[in-house]
Amino acid sequence: MRIGELSTRTGVPVPTIKYYLREGLLPAGELTSPNQAQYGDAHVRRLKLVRALLDVGKLSIAATRTVLDSIDAPDNSLHDRLGIAQHALNPAPAGDPDSADLLEARERADRLIAERGWLVESPGPARDTLTQVLHSYLELGQQDLLVVLDDYADAVESLAASEIATVGRRSDPDSQVEGVVLGTVLGDALITALHRLAQEDASARAFAALG
Amino acid sequence: MRIGELSTRTGVPVPTIKYYLREGLLPAGELTSPNQAQYGDAHVRRLKLVRALLDVGKLSIAATRTVLDSIDAPDNSLHDRLGIAQHALNPAPAGDPDSADLLEARERADRLIAERGWLVESPGPARDTLTQVLHSYLELGQQDLLVVLDDYADAVESLAASEIATVGRRSDPDSQVEGVVLGTVLGDALITALHRLAQEDASARAFAALG
Repeated sequence: MRIGELSTRTGVPVPTIKYYLREGLLPAGELTSPNQAQYGDAHVRRLKLVRALLDVGKLSIAATRTVLDSIDAPDNSLHDRLGIAQHALNPAPAGDPDSADLLEARERADRLIAERGWLVESPGPARDTLTQVLHSYLELGQQDLLVVLDDYADAVESLAASEIATVGRRSDPDSQVEGVVLGTVLGDALITALHRLAQEDASARAFAALG
Repeated sequence: MRIGELSTRTGVPVPTIKYYLREGLLPAGELTSPNQAQYGDAHVRRLKLVRALLDVGKLSIAATRTVLDSIDAPDNSLHDRLGIAQHALNPAPAGDPDSADLLEARERADRLIAERGWLVESPGPARDTLTQVLHSYLELGQQDLLVVLDDYADAVESLAASEIATVGRRSDPDSQVEGVVLGTVLGDALITALHRLAQEDASARAFAALG
């Protein structure tokens, strides 16, 4: 198909498709004349993936490129590709590295991971992100909200096990890779969306009539 | 304190503080001479809040301003302020409004909310976000990963109830307001961080040695 049909089938405007081509998010089409390229179903699928990473995952162009590269890297294990995607999703934490709050946050994160026996990199992007988030709770005086920390950990532990088992049951290796990487991005977005709905509900029941 | 000490106490560079002042994220200090302003503990606290919303919540400057306005609005109920924050956090969904996948996503989101009896706006930002995320799962052929949808919903329902109850136990109204708004931003970040850790662990157990 020509670029115009690729645009129609995906709902992505032609100038945006050209931008993704220039940025290396979408492989070039097959040239059929010096000024004309043909695109296939693989381009439709990749374009939808790019939009999901940008719009739903809220990734930057650079992070999207890294995640796509991790999907395309043929020699890595599934676990390595998840690691590449997680590095792209988790920027290094900010903050004064010597502050008491940050040291306490790191200690709490390490203790939680050790108590659960989670097999995660140290240092690593997911551990760093947890440290950064705990640091914000402490620094902003919201410690009491951490009462749910262990319940959160219980919940995500069983959810992640179900997700990874689902991906493991897929027969097509390409589809397994997409599942591991998208499971991170879409899974985050899904749990966030449900969490906000549940908060809206709990708040409506507790506070709506109180002023 | 002068702006230099405000910078030292928060770790935020002076030019960045001046930028936040221009953007209205931080109230002006008290002028003690035409070229000099004094800042207080309220500025320290607000500056940490701004950094948490920008760095941990990944909000834009405009969304941060909206969330801060919701905290400062004195006449709104706690529930109304949560609503303002959620609107700032959830941009309107993209995508072709007539596509079959989007219609199915909306139907699934509405059905899940109805089955749970959740009291949420219709239309509303949290509902729209769930629709958009489900749409991405369907469009990218990742339906099988939605096997965890009901388990996710169970988990967040009890977590949100705990969080809102914790905020309700606070005695200071200002602190309740901050808790409701920060509970959304930090709660999302916390559950996302734990989810990624649990995924890394589950992936390490399932895939690390398999290649």
